Amino acid sequence: MSDFDDKLKKKTEMAEEVIESYLPKEETRQSDIMRAMNYSVTAGGKRLRPILMYEVAMMFGCDSELVKPFMAVMEFIHTYSLVHDDLPAMDDDDYRRGRKTTHVEFGEAMGILAGDGLLNYAYEIGMNAVVNGKEIEKKAKALKVIADKAGIYGMVGGQTVDVLSEGKELDKDMLDYINERKTGALIEASMMTGAILGGASDEETKIIEKAASYIGMAFQIQDDILDVISTSEELGKPINSDEKNLKSTYVTIMGLEQASNEVEWLTDNGIELLKSLNRDNDFLFELIKKLVNRSK
Amino acid sequence: MSDFDDKLKKKTEMAEEVIESYLPKEETRQSDIMRAMNYSVTAGGKRLRPILMYEVAMMFGCDSELVKPFMAVMEFIHTYSLVHDDLPAMDDDDYRRGRKTTHVEFGEAMGILAGDGLLNYAYEIGMNAVVNGKEIEKKAKALKVIADKAGIYGMVGGQTVDVLSEGKELDKDMLDYINERKTGALIEASMMTGAILGGASDEETKIIEKAASYIGMAFQIQDDILDVISTSEELGKPINSDEKNLKSTYVTIMGLEQASNEVEWLTDNGIELLKSLNRDNDFLFELIKKLVNRSK
Repeated sequence: MSDFDDKLKKKTEMAEEVIESYLPKEETRQSDIMRAMNYSVTAGGKRLRPILMYEVAMMFGCDSELVKPFMAVMEFIHTYSLVHDDLPAMDDDDYRRGRKTTHVEFGEAMGILAGDGLLNYAYEIGMNAVVNGKEIEKKAKALKVIADKAGIYGMVGGQTVDVLSEGKELDKDMLDYINERKTGALIEASMMTGAILGGASDEETKIIEKAASYIGMAFQIQDDILDVISTSEELGKPINSDEKNLKSTYVTIMGLEQASNEVEWLTDNGIELLKSLNRDNDFLFELIKKLVNRSK
Repeated sequence: MSDFDDKLKKKTEMAEEVIESYLPKEETRQSDIMRAMNYSVTAGGKRLRPILMYEVAMMFGCDSELVKPFMAVMEFIHTYSLVHDDLPAMDDDDYRRGRKTTHVEFGEAMGILAGDGLLNYAYEIGMNAVVNGKEIEKKAKALKVIADKAGIYGMVGGQTVDVLSEGKELDKDMLDYINERKTGALIEASMMTGAILGGASDEETKIIEKAASYIGMAFQIQDDILDVISTSEELGKPINSDEKNLKSTYVTIMGLEQASNEVEWLTDNGIELLKSLNRDNDFLFELIKKLVNRSK
C-alpha cells in the first residue's frame, strides 16, 4: 500500500467514525426511521465530501473539533439526496453500492420519511454546533453556505432539471447547468465550509469555491468516462450504456478523448487555484488528482 | 364582523404578505420546482403557526422585523410536511383545501422535490436571517428549536409512528405520542420562537412550550371532534368517518363528551400558563379560545 493509500484509508476511517458518532440513537417508538436513516448513512461510499471539507479546514489550520459536526451535516444531506433519488417516482433504483436501497428495504413511506429525517437532522446537528461553543459567526456562515448550496438554487435545483430533462437530448450548456448543481454544489459547500471554519477571508473562500467547482466538474466527467470504460470492459466491446439509453453525457457530447482532456484541464486548474493560496496540504492535492484518475 | 374577527383577518393578511415575500422567484431553469413550491405554500390555510409565533413575539415586545423570516420558515416547514404526507406512498390524497395536491398537479417526482425544496428553503431563509443583522445568538437559538421540533424526535417522528400505526387500534398513550409530535411539535416551535426572539428567559420559554403543548393537543382533539360532527351533518346521521375507517381518534377512545371536556381543560390551562407570565396579549388569548371552538 502506498503512503497516499495508507493516509486515505486512515482519513476515510476517521470520517466514518465522525459520521457514525452523529447517527441518531434508535431507542424511540419511531426507531424504524432511525434504522432506515442509519442504514442509508452506513451504506458506505467514499466519504468524499467530509474528507474534502476536513482537508480544506486543515489547510487553514482549523481546530478539528470545530469541523466534525459539519462533516456529518454534509454526509447526511448527501445521503438524503441519494435516498430520495432512488425512490420509484425518481430514478427507481433497487440497489446502491451492492445493498438494497432504503425504500426497498424499509418500504416507500419510510424511504420518503428517512430522507426527510436525514435532511432535517443535518440541520439539527448543524444548529446544535452553531449555538454551542465559540465561533458562532463562522459556524453560522458555514451552515448558511451549506443550506444555499443544498437547495433549489443548488443541488435540489440540479436534480429538478435532471428529472425534467429525462429522455431529452442535452447540449453541453444544459449538462453543465445540471452537474454544476447536482454534483458540484455540495462539493463546493464542503470545501467552502472547511475554509470558512478555518477562518479564510471572503476572497480566499471565493477561490476555494471556484477550485471546488472545477473539481466537482472533473469528478462528474470522469464518472461519465468510467461508465463507458466499465461497460466496455464488461461487454468486451465499446458500447456505452448511457448512449444506449439515449442519455446525454459528457462522453456522448464531446467524445472520450476530449472528455479526458477536459478532466485533466479542470483538475490542473483546480489544484493550481488551491496552490495559489500558499497553504500546504499535499495530501489534498494528491487526493484530488487520484479522485479523477480513479476506477469506479 | 366582530372586533376579534376583524383583527384576525388583518393578522392573517399580514402573515400571508410575510410568507409571500419569502417565496422563491421563478426565473430559473428549474422554475417548475419553484412553481410547485409556491403552489403548495399559497394553497391557503389558517397560517396558524406564523400568527401564533408573531403574537407570542409581540407579547415579549419583539421587533416585528426580527420575527418575519421565521414566520416564513415555519410555514414552509409545515407546508413541506403536507406535500410529502399527501404523496401516494403516504396518505395518497388527491385534494387538499379544495385544490389538487402538489404531486397530482405537478407529478410525483416534483411532489417529492418540492417538499425537499421547501424544507431546505426554510433553512436557507432561517440561516440568512441568522447571519444578517443583529441578535445572532437569539436567532440561532430559535432556529435550533425549530430544527429539533421539526425532526425525528418531533414532527417527522410523529409522522413516522402514525404511518407505522396504520390499521392498528391505538390507546390514548400512543395517540398522545403521535399528536404531541405530529401536530404539537411545530406549534411549540412556533410559540417558542416568538418567545426566544422576544428575549424570553429560558424559564419563560419553558412555560411557553408547555402552554403550546396544551394548545396543540386541544387543537388536535377538536379536529377529531369536528370530524365526527361534520360527517354527521353531511350524512344526516351520526356516523364517524374515522371510526368507520377503524382509525383511532380521541373521540373513538374517550367519546365525544369527554373529548370536549378535555379540549376545554387543555385550552384553559394553556391560557392560564400564558397569563402567568404577566404579559398582555388579549388577542392571543382570544385567538386560542376561538381556535378550539372553531368549525373546520
